[in-house]
Amino acid sequence: MEASYQHLIDLNDYPVSWWNQIVALGADIKEHPQRYTHACVGKVMATLFYEPSTRTQMSFQAAMIRLGGSIIGFDNPATSSVSKGESLKDTTKIVSNYADILIIRHPMAGAAKAAALTTDCPVINAGDGGHLHPTQTLTDLLTLRVEKGRLDGLTVGLCGDLLNGRTVHSLCKALSCYKNNHFVLISTPELRLPFYVKDIIKANGGTFTEVSSLDQVIGSLDVLYMTRIQQERFTSEEAYLAQKDTYVLDAKKMSRARPDMIVLHPLPRVDEITVEVDQDPRAMYFKQAHYGMYVRMALIMTMLENQNPSRLLKGKVHKGVCCKNPSCITQQEHYLPKSFRGEGTTLECEYCDERLLLEH
Amino acid sequence: MEASYQHLIDLNDYPVSWWNQIVALGADIKEHPQRYTHACVGKVMATLFYEPSTRTQMSFQAAMIRLGGSIIGFDNPATSSVSKGESLKDTTKIVSNYADILIIRHPMAGAAKAAALTTDCPVINAGDGGHLHPTQTLTDLLTLRVEKGRLDGLTVGLCGDLLNGRTVHSLCKALSCYKNNHFVLISTPELRLPFYVKDIIKANGGTFTEVSSLDQVIGSLDVLYMTRIQQERFTSEEAYLAQKDTYVLDAKKMSRARPDMIVLHPLPRVDEITVEVDQDPRAMYFKQAHYGMYVRMALIMTMLENQNPSRLLKGKVHKGVCCKNPSCITQQEHYLPKSFRGEGTTLECEYCDERLLLEH
Amino acid sequence: MEASYQHLIDLNDYPVSWWNQIVALGADIKEHPQRYTHACVGKVMATLFYEPSTRTQMSFQAAMIRLGGSIIGFDNPATSSVSKGESLKDTTKIVSNYADILIIRHPMAGAAKAAALTTDCPVINAGDGGHLHPTQTLTDLLTLRVEKGRLDGLTVGLCGDLLNGRTVHSLCKALSCYKNNHFVLISTPELRLPFYVKDIIKANGGTFTEVSSLDQVIGSLDVLYMTRIQQERFTSEEAYLAQKDTYVLDAKKMSRARPDMIVLHPLPRVDEITVEVDQDPRAMYFKQAHYGMYVRMALIMTMLENQNPSRLLKGKVHKGVCCKNPSCITQQEHYLPKSFRGEGTTLECEYCDERLLLEH
Repeated sequence: MEASYQHLIDLNDYPVSWWNQIVALGADIKEHPQRYTHACVGKVMATLFYEPSTRTQMSFQAAMIRLGGSIIGFDNPATSSVSKGESLKDTTKIVSNYADILIIRHPMAGAAKAAALTTDCPVINAGDGGHLHPTQTLTDLLTLRVEKGRLDGLTVGLCGDLLNGRTVHSLCKALSCYKNNHFVLISTPELRLPFYVKDIIKANGGTFTEVSSLDQVIGSLDVLYMTRIQQERFTSEEAYLAQKDTYVLDAKKMSRARPDMIVLHPLPRVDEITVEVDQDPRAMYFKQAHYGMYVRMALIMTMLENQNPSRLLKGKVHKGVCCKNPSCITQQEHYLPKSFRGEGTTLECEYCDERLLLEH
Repeated sequence: MEASYQHLIDLNDYPVSWWNQIVALGADIKEHPQRYTHACVGKVMATLFYEPSTRTQMSFQAAMIRLGGSIIGFDNPATSSVSKGESLKDTTKIVSNYADILIIRHPMAGAAKAAALTTDCPVINAGDGGHLHPTQTLTDLLTLRVEKGRLDGLTVGLCGDLLNGRTVHSLCKALSCYKNNHFVLISTPELRLPFYVKDIIKANGGTFTEVSSLDQVIGSLDVLYMTRIQQERFTSEEAYLAQKDTYVLDAKKMSRARPDMIVLHPLPRVDEITVEVDQDPRAMYFKQAHYGMYVRMALIMTMLENQNPSRLLKGKVHKGVCCKNPSCITQQEHYLPKSFRGEGTTLECEYCDERLLLEH
Repeated sequence: MEASYQHLIDLNDYPVSWWNQIVALGADIKEHPQRYTHACVGKVMATLFYEPSTRTQMSFQAAMIRLGGSIIGFDNPATSSVSKGESLKDTTKIVSNYADILIIRHPMAGAAKAAALTTDCPVINAGDGGHLHPTQTLTDLLTLRVEKGRLDGLTVGLCGDLLNGRTVHSLCKALSCYKNNHFVLISTPELRLPFYVKDIIKANGGTFTEVSSLDQVIGSLDVLYMTRIQQERFTSEEAYLAQKDTYVLDAKKMSRARPDMIVLHPLPRVDEITVEVDQDPRAMYFKQAHYGMYVRMALIMTMLENQNPSRLLKGKVHKGVCCKNPSCITQQEHYLPKSFRGEGTTLECEYCDERLLLEH
């Protein structure tokens, strides 16, 4: 389905050259913000947050304001018309006539794509459940570009819950598209990176090693990307108590890191980085959040220029076939065309990207 | 009581010529939006939503922004000072000193008028319970004006719950003020239009017929205005199951309609119009929502010019007489002057318009 | 700890000359608002309201908008990232990179100061629990300056719950810094002004008398500052019923007041001032709320000029010593340096100002 507008639903809908263009524009805005203060004058952005995410929402709002545009939106579906049973389609269609661009956050996979099928303006996916969060990945790329000066030839440690971390999967997929990046995957055996992500790294020409101790490898890293391991992910309370400190970054561990290593974190952090590390000049996670605003400015500008209408659905509807993923937006919004990529007995839902095995 | 500002509380406070002026201005803004982008620069609009209505609120906000103005407000009384027991008067009085115009939505009848008695700026009624919602009616008029080219000589079908639908009553009263309009009232016998609305239609020179099947009459209509019948309005589950499809608009029914008939709906819709109808070019309900923004732009501009201070209370206080309507704002805000229109034993509350029979 | 930005945490961090400067600027803005409509163009203010206070928030928002700036923020911590367990430090640090100035409201004492320790922009304290609310006091000073023409030589009646009223304590402390002010403290014996506030009045050269009847003294006042006595503050239901009318201002009591006496109230009021008084030209509480917007405009402008970086922590950390006040922000945010003023066995927490007696 050919849309009339350019959307950002999934980073993989765009080539690496486009990512570079967004990152380069973000870096220029960061250097020369005053050149962009009128870039979106007269434009209205609506932030439709079907689940709260204060920081992401404020980041988008500040971005639009700093481009000279204005904002409307909601952040509390319980007090909105949504609670009266209105469909995602109707709400987003209507608001797309009030606004020039929609920012959508939703707890279900594929929601932003589903909305983009019928809106009358561009859509940016600000997170669709555990599925995609492309502006976080672009934020990470801009931070590396500015703070390390390059996106290739990096040794990147990823520490924490690598099994469930959407942010980590997306970053691995993206960074492995650049040359000579090596990933050091630091987690418990149970929380290792999924095989399909490792397959993508290999297919893109990247390399990786897997270890279970941060201390052991921190000295070799250019970048350390921390994420949280929730206590309930450990196999037992004993396992948690025995291992938790292994995955907490503190001043002592930092003392073994290179002087030019940088520490990233998608935030919010809880206790996986101790507060003392905040004062270390290598701690880059607050700056990273700041860069998120610049990359969103670059995206909003680019989407509003609308030069490349997005192709949203490329597969086809198979009679009687429905996605079985309970978190897929097609489970809730029944009017959506149930479109799948692929042929034969393995199909892939075009909303949530889950595979479906057909029995014949 | 002569106010110092011009308010929009009830469409009937203004002559038809004024409605036409607002509709004409709305149509001009729609055609030439760029001419109005600075019309309200430096002005501040406050949206005080004592009950949530995301779409109405966003429509007003987008309207003000597209006129160059700014917005403040709240949409969640549970997290506002309102929950500390502050009176409607105090909250609206104070905010009217921060803002240049107030948009008030409230669950009780007469709340916008009550606020307008003491505010220091114009008030627009954005819905006061089941009582009035004048900007919806103006939206409907603008839609007809643009999409049908006229407001007279129309055959208008109204389908669904005609007994309880505030929107439908208001539209009938307004459209019957134009010449040669004929209303086709489509509902179950239990959900027919109230007698007092039929009386107004007749008094204004309009005509109507009552039927119970949409299919039977759809071919004769210029306009079909759909509303929802909630399941609990039917007399029994059997009645619901037997009749519900009669009041659902689908592609099959549309196939019998004229090529230039248009379909309106105040939204949100639930399932009274099937999704397939959305793609029919005669489906005008999303455009209608869009026109709502233009008519609100016209209203905000007109109210801010403030050329005709509104007369709010025209009746008088009768010693010891109180309105008995439990949804009337005078039940909650005890400081309000209990003013009534009329004489003798039949009085009409000036806030909620309910009649009160006095016993002598 | 020397901050890089100028903050307003506590009025007492500034000399009286600075208060006068803010009040004078507020008065000038009130007289010539059009001169200031571009003062903050391109600047972004974030309102971080960890507890709801609709009126204070809208007052700040209107202030920033009327200076040409823009606003982001949240008002409902339950639907924000805050509910995911993020620290005050992390949230405010990150938002301080999106915005140019933060307005913080928080239920715990010392929260605004705690945030200011690490933010990358100025912070204004919009109320930290029962502790400080400096913009209310500046509002009161501006109102007196404009409506009485002076801040000295005034006989000021303070009526209601003087024991627990943060606003009253703060106003007494501030006004006693000006010459020849006399305070008439009107309350039940149980709800008298605390000794430490009386000590400050005396130390500053002010005088006061204590009475239990408003009627008895109202004729002698230049200013009457009303506050609410909550029913539960009375010793018994009988005491409440016997005394409550004594502390309610009505038209009859107003008839005994001077023609140029003015009535102030920090709002919201419940029933301690009857609605009939609103029409008395001496009732100044709605104007007072309006002046609050002007004084906040003056503050935002002054803080953004950032000419005098604030010194936040002046005392020192004593090994093992923690503040015992359960409402102190240090009880919740454990990473904060537990800094105290003073020496020997009496220390004063630098966040909540509570005294701590050390046992040796």
